[in-house]
Amino acid sequence: MKKTEPCFLTAAEATAQMKAGTLTSEALIRSCLERIETRDPAVKAWLHVDPDLAIRKARELDKRPIMGPLHGIPFGVKDIMDTADMPTTYNSPTWQDHRPTRDAACVNIVRQAGAVILGKTDTVEFAFNSRKAASHNPYNLAHTPGGSSSGSGAAVGDYQVQCAFGTQTAGSHIRPASFNGIYAIKPSWGTVSREGVHLISPILDTVGWYGRSVDDLILGAEAFRLPGIESLSPRDVKGLKIGYCETPYWSRAETGAKKAMALAVERLQKAGAIVEEIVLPAHFADISEAHTMIMFGDGRVALYDEYLRQGGNLHPELKLTVENGRGVTPEKLVAAYDLADACRMEFDAIAAGYDAVLAPAATGEAPKGLHTVGDWIFNGLWTLLHTPCVAIPSVLGDIGLPVGVQLVGPRLSDAKLLAVAQSLQHVLDDFADTRAKILAAA
Amino acid sequence: MKKTEPCFLTAAEATAQMKAGTLTSEALIRSCLERIETRDPAVKAWLHVDPDLAIRKARELDKRPIMGPLHGIPFGVKDIMDTADMPTTYNSPTWQDHRPTRDAACVNIVRQAGAVILGKTDTVEFAFNSRKAASHNPYNLAHTPGGSSSGSGAAVGDYQVQCAFGTQTAGSHIRPASFNGIYAIKPSWGTVSREGVHLISPILDTVGWYGRSVDDLILGAEAFRLPGIESLSPRDVKGLKIGYCETPYWSRAETGAKKAMALAVERLQKAGAIVEEIVLPAHFADISEAHTMIMFGDGRVALYDEYLRQGGNLHPELKLTVENGRGVTPEKLVAAYDLADACRMEFDAIAAGYDAVLAPAATGEAPKGLHTVGDWIFNGLWTLLHTPCVAIPSVLGDIGLPVGVQLVGPRLSDAKLLAVAQSLQHVLDDFADTRAKILAAA
Repeated sequence: MKKTEPCFLTAAEATAQMKAGTLTSEALIRSCLERIETRDPAVKAWLHVDPDLAIRKARELDKRPIMGPLHGIPFGVKDIMDTADMPTTYNSPTWQDHRPTRDAACVNIVRQAGAVILGKTDTVEFAFNSRKAASHNPYNLAHTPGGSSSGSGAAVGDYQVQCAFGTQTAGSHIRPASFNGIYAIKPSWGTVSREGVHLISPILDTVGWYGRSVDDLILGAEAFRLPGIESLSPRDVKGLKIGYCETPYWSRAETGAKKAMALAVERLQKAGAIVEEIVLPAHFADISEAHTMIMFGDGRVALYDEYLRQGGNLHPELKLTVENGRGVTPEKLVAAYDLADACRMEFDAIAAGYDAVLAPAATGEAPKGLHTVGDWIFNGLWTLLHTPCVAIPSVLGDIGLPVGVQLVGPRLSDAKLLAVAQSLQHVLDDFADTRAKILAAA
Repeated sequence: MKKTEPCFLTAAEATAQMKAGTLTSEALIRSCLERIETRDPAVKAWLHVDPDLAIRKARELDKRPIMGPLHGIPFGVKDIMDTADMPTTYNSPTWQDHRPTRDAACVNIVRQAGAVILGKTDTVEFAFNSRKAASHNPYNLAHTPGGSSSGSGAAVGDYQVQCAFGTQTAGSHIRPASFNGIYAIKPSWGTVSREGVHLISPILDTVGWYGRSVDDLILGAEAFRLPGIESLSPRDVKGLKIGYCETPYWSRAETGAKKAMALAVERLQKAGAIVEEIVLPAHFADISEAHTMIMFGDGRVALYDEYLRQGGNLHPELKLTVENGRGVTPEKLVAAYDLADACRMEFDAIAAGYDAVLAPAATGEAPKGLHTVGDWIFNGLWTLLHTPCVAIPSVLGDIGLPVGVQLVGPRLSDAKLLAVAQSLQHVLDDFADTRAKILAAA
């Protein structure tokens, strides 16, 4: 497809064109549907698309005044989220015919903001460590798009849809952003309702969304009324104070992440930002283990229902979790909660000294094969620390796959972080101009 | 009705009789249904009862081997929990025709443990500070049964059903136990899945259940595999070390709570337990405000979906919360989380020195009128501290309504707390013998 087709626009660009009367939602949706028809037999981002429904909704929107910040924008919904007009399978063999009668809160909120739900995107089963999505990385079909928000990441990355929901319990949202060359926000924990989203962990699960620019993410932030979003004001790059944070897990960084972080520092400094290294206190090294303990402890509780329903059909990894094969004990779980609580306060105090903290978004380029979704080591800590994270595409790695970085802020500083990210997107995103070209030719 | 009818049995007694072959689930269910028919036109505990379905399920259970700890036991489900075979209205005018296609996790788990779902019990709308249940206190119809688990508390208290689910975000589960003369467990936060339960706060919402003895609560604890339940062992009352904790809010205690706490100390000491006063550190006095801040901050997020759906029809209290009429700010919210995190660790350390901590379950007897559900001051702190709580009926107050106490333990010590509660139930419950008599005559 030609890269001048509407499907290649960012959501913010499409919104501007619709406001100017040079684009209709119907034309945008039709372009996305055409892109899906062309590409999705190979990429396999979607479990369900309803073209007729989407076109009908777009036509209705084209006839009425602006509903909200996402008016007329196509949106993909991760298939662990309930939808009243489409199946919700959790990518579980047991739930293939499941039809909820109510939208998840997040789905209704974007609908009320004017979004057109295009369909349901593939996911790791229950978004937890089990049956993988069938989705491929749009940059190289032999590679994973990451997970568990596999289909959402791949669909936005492949220009099949402007925005999509992901969720993160470990690294399920930010890592696919990095792997698919797209933007993502994981908002502060607690700022988006999880009503109607399949739950794993009350203290970890976070709903986020993907877009193709920070401006796209801001449209969603307005729909969800993220803290401070009503008074978002642009920031001058010159003089911004950025904390450079390799995290205690830097030894896991591959060449892709190293390249992305080094280039980010170089470009930030060239643009007039002040970059200072942050070395987190030594006990932050234990967060990864605490995160794993909580995830498996909470998973044991969350998946017990499915264990009873599915019996022997339950995926072996889920069965292992429910049967506590991970060796979670009350003592270890309480210790993990307490470490996280302490680190959360400490990190907020550290981050308060910066306009944003720069950290790796993934260990490197997407691994080969669909049997893996990649390493969550650079994500689990921020999930547990409840910080807002904004992923920004950064470079193409050695094998030509995208790698991103993320900006992190203290809890509930979402609007400030988005403002900083907005001013830094053109500094940090080194392959913005080539992405559409690469994929239009794919 | 005669108090020899099966509906007056505890769940544990009914289980024993069914095992001995002297009672069938069908006979038990029929007795409960008769009780409902007689009494519920006045008590109004239920929003939906399906007699035919319940009898059919009971017959099936009578024909098969024991499914689990709740085999054949009737169970009431608070109507904020999804049920695949009954409506789920949240007591909201907007959702009167809502029929979910999947059971909430907790509903499925008790079904798999053999429970027969009798119906849906009335609740405060969305279990949050709004439209009250129509339910009355079975001891005096002019008084509230408490809330938001109003119908569940009233139904178990009135001998219409052996067990029922409640939920607690402030004091919605333990307070109705006190008001209706019944037993309750609010398990440690995180030990029971909230999948399919209408959410308010990820850090507060807790699913619990009611019964008519600690043994009844243990049947549920087995179904939910609460921490340590597999090795529950009875405790000798003599020598038990009990912390007497008035909490920083003792000035709110009315004569009922004072009488219940004083009698508990007297009877514990007489039975050979050691009672020592616990004075919580001064900053625990700020927990109530922190709890309120979190509840309204999280409520603002949780109810935004309904706000968009219902518009002007939304209950004014919910509207106020969504529009942040409560003045929640990110700074106040983070400070509230941090105080709670610190107090959680401190309370665990304090409670570790005792076999259980004794605290008031409510301020006193149930207030008059259905416009109120009573004061949550003695509950919100334990909800926020994530401790397991077991409510035990204690005395009849000055106006003849029940008042309970609660036993509290450190996080994830549920099994130990139940064992202590089991040994103390006959010590603390001063009107066990008169309850059925009073209500059989009602």
